Amino acid sequence: MTMNGAESLVRTMVAGGVDVCFTNPGTSEMHFVAALDRVEGMRCVLCLFEGVTSGAADGYARMMDRPASTLLHLGPGLGNALANLHNLKKAKSPVLNIVGEHATYHRQYDAPLTSDIEGIARPVSHWVKTSMSATDVARDGAEAIASAMTPPGQVATLILPADTAWNDGAGIAPLPRVAVRTPVAAENVRRSAEALRGGNATLLLGGVSLRERGQLVAARIAAKTGCRILAETSNARIQRGRGRLAIERVPYPVDQALATLKDTRAIVLCGSKNPTAFFAYPGKPSLFAPEGCRIERLADYHEDLVGALEALAEELGAPKSVAIPEAAKPPMPTGALNPDSIAAALAHLIPENAICVDEAVTTGRGFFKSTHGAAPHDWLALTGGAIGEGLCLSTGAAVACPDRQVIGLQADGSAMYTVQALWTQAREKLRVLTLIWSNRAYAILRHELTNVGATNPGRKALDMLSLGDPDLDWVGIARGMGVPGSRATTIEELAKAVRAGLATPGPYLVEVVL
Amino acid sequence: MTMNGAESLVRTMVAGGVDVCFTNPGTSEMHFVAALDRVEGMRCVLCLFEGVTSGAADGYARMMDRPASTLLHLGPGLGNALANLHNLKKAKSPVLNIVGEHATYHRQYDAPLTSDIEGIARPVSHWVKTSMSATDVARDGAEAIASAMTPPGQVATLILPADTAWNDGAGIAPLPRVAVRTPVAAENVRRSAEALRGGNATLLLGGVSLRERGQLVAARIAAKTGCRILAETSNARIQRGRGRLAIERVPYPVDQALATLKDTRAIVLCGSKNPTAFFAYPGKPSLFAPEGCRIERLADYHEDLVGALEALAEELGAPKSVAIPEAAKPPMPTGALNPDSIAAALAHLIPENAICVDEAVTTGRGFFKSTHGAAPHDWLALTGGAIGEGLCLSTGAAVACPDRQVIGLQADGSAMYTVQALWTQAREKLRVLTLIWSNRAYAILRHELTNVGATNPGRKALDMLSLGDPDLDWVGIARGMGVPGSRATTIEELAKAVRAGLATPGPYLVEVVL
Repeated sequence: MTMNGAESLVRTMVAGGVDVCFTNPGTSEMHFVAALDRVEGMRCVLCLFEGVTSGAADGYARMMDRPASTLLHLGPGLGNALANLHNLKKAKSPVLNIVGEHATYHRQYDAPLTSDIEGIARPVSHWVKTSMSATDVARDGAEAIASAMTPPGQVATLILPADTAWNDGAGIAPLPRVAVRTPVAAENVRRSAEALRGGNATLLLGGVSLRERGQLVAARIAAKTGCRILAETSNARIQRGRGRLAIERVPYPVDQALATLKDTRAIVLCGSKNPTAFFAYPGKPSLFAPEGCRIERLADYHEDLVGALEALAEELGAPKSVAIPEAAKPPMPTGALNPDSIAAALAHLIPENAICVDEAVTTGRGFFKSTHGAAPHDWLALTGGAIGEGLCLSTGAAVACPDRQVIGLQADGSAMYTVQALWTQAREKLRVLTLIWSNRAYAILRHELTNVGATNPGRKALDMLSLGDPDLDWVGIARGMGVPGSRATTIEELAKAVRAGLATPGPYLVEVVL
Repeated sequence: MTMNGAESLVRTMVAGGVDVCFTNPGTSEMHFVAALDRVEGMRCVLCLFEGVTSGAADGYARMMDRPASTLLHLGPGLGNALANLHNLKKAKSPVLNIVGEHATYHRQYDAPLTSDIEGIARPVSHWVKTSMSATDVARDGAEAIASAMTPPGQVATLILPADTAWNDGAGIAPLPRVAVRTPVAAENVRRSAEALRGGNATLLLGGVSLRERGQLVAARIAAKTGCRILAETSNARIQRGRGRLAIERVPYPVDQALATLKDTRAIVLCGSKNPTAFFAYPGKPSLFAPEGCRIERLADYHEDLVGALEALAEELGAPKSVAIPEAAKPPMPTGALNPDSIAAALAHLIPENAICVDEAVTTGRGFFKSTHGAAPHDWLALTGGAIGEGLCLSTGAAVACPDRQVIGLQADGSAMYTVQALWTQAREKLRVLTLIWSNRAYAILRHELTNVGATNPGRKALDMLSLGDPDLDWVGIARGMGVPGSRATTIEELAKAVRAGLATPGPYLVEVVL
């Protein structure tokens, strides 16, 4: 049976384990869309803006450790997906982007949608290819999947000219050999052990070493050497809560980060990098390690992080197992809403096995510390600093894990960038409860204005950092996209709204008025 | 007096005539924001998503024929602006993008927001530069303005590392010599005249030749030669309505376009190009001109289009002036809403001197034909095919022309991409009346699915083209962002809602349920 290029690609994707597609198609992708009807096993999730597709693919990959795909409309569609592809790339999540393009023979005429798609793709992709013929499409797709799955996870962008989709294809292509995480060199282990034995050391975890398995080995290493365990400032996924290790992160504010690391004499990196300031500030350092601090790279992102930790535990003669201490849980607060009371309340409100998506920005600085003792959950944070991913991460995580509750901890300014994700949550009836911290400001920028030395700002500057005038009505916006919700102005109302949200079979949004 | 790099740039911009900035700033842009307080004459308009900034800059430039600026936060902020920069580039609008970047010495540490900004900028920019020192910033900015103003209008992207903003700058820089539109070669005029004299010819207008002045000359040429005057399919700005020439556009559907041009023996291009299909379709041609049709380029985009038309009229011995015939106006319809009745109603509802922004897509195919006899107005269409610009174009046009009424003719699917523009319209109290054609579908794609040969689509394909389940509540979404509105289900309700909108001092939205 003959199949066209588009169908050969869809079948190759399903066979290669890429069976979810976050789509925002246009004319040049119509054959791909048509092929979906003929192929079993591909779940398509429509998004009303392309930034939602890439953010959702990131959330999906973080929970599944395998790529979803996006379906995008030429250069501008890819452009709209770019910011969350940036975040996804920094999370080291795998993804397969399918970008429609003009028919090969049509490009020369410079039609309105003609653009340099490869040029737009390259800054956010590890692998970029334009299929040149319908008979290449399946093989190119298989190569793209293998590239995406290359540890620790890559961005593969396959550009699909319309005629390569509609002409006769060459059938399903087998997946090439996919790279696996490589073991670390014995020398890394030896030097890391030496660094930890010197005392006052920090083991800095990142990537998959922050899952439960890695934490248990890290706890053994800490028990033996007395080292401190820290996570990077922004992490793709940490398993945490009751029964897990209470791991703190390198703080975002420069002064706090410097204070945290000031007595550290050695830092061992495991899927992490030399701790770095998010931004530079006049007169402050870019790197947080104190002068003379020894930096040892135990394992690079793409290497076998948990295996490296096990080898290190072995080298150090660490105990075979250690008890994980019970984390304290603050009492349930009452009354006024503020970042501290909310943080304490979250320790009680996060349900068992939830997936928390943290784009809380300023409001959420203290959330982590207060929730070490909450019910076990996963914590997904913004890794690339491009705000506007939270609602999308939640969407993708909920598609990946339909049996788990997603809790979005969401700043208001950030939520606006990809607010269209709410509609997809409603259409797919996803179990996403979004808590909007409605402070009606780019609050982080008010601090940053001071941080960069711009004290005493005037009306014009402050107007650029305010989301008031008019206030956003989040309950109204969400309802307009099919997501029910309510407003909370006290801790008691927040708790009640969370209960209502958890009892709702689909998505729910709470505007938490600060 | 010493000023820092940021202030030297803002002052250079104001001195160079760039005095509107559509902003979505972040930390790396805080010195630029702080400088706004110290500099008179720069109007800053906050947008809650970067796609709004570039789309608004396009609307502004189309009405003012000079650049606005955007203020964007590193690579992802530029990425979010990219789709509408693509549209703006295809409109040949000028713009100056200011993109914040990490401090020069901080880039090496690969902080989360580090990306290849120049790489992202290049596919949508004519000019890209990263300032290397605070003392370069003003001069680089002046060069960028001159580049943006180079005819017919260019995209200039200046990347501003944070330390070049906060260190001491070198004062205001003078604007370099700005290029002007060049006269066309006499040979072009001679050959174009020859082509028109041959009969059955089409004069295809684009760019600024579609303003009133160009039309008057084109009408004289048509009176002499009997040629047909057509506009390109998508145009940045046409002055039209009562007293102007009733110019039809090359149709979007391939079969209609081929039929329109089938008897044409010569096409003379004036700020336009050889008519090309928007997309390729199996078995259909990419170019619309019939075989053997002579194609003559009278004037290229950057040349003096009106001067070229005048030279051509002279060469042909055309009459010095001709009367512009009165265009017919369909009677005001009643009852049911459909694309035809809406089109006829618009002929009566468009107010004097309005700016119509057309992103009506399928619903709007017939709007143009019915509104030749409406009150005089400007018509701004989507030039790059990247849907999601309409609300932004309206925003920018209203900032440019506060004394004129903007009417957005807006498809629902397209409106969702940059829905955040509504908030900016509310904050700035802009006179924008948006009519949302709520057909709850990517209706164009239903046609396109058939056009590419994918007939008889199944449930999965059709779901990807439907915006229902859940329906978007546009009045609710708009109200959530501070824009009042109402719903219309008949022509009478539409007329009443338009009157209400025109009587509202700020923005207003009408959900027109189809």
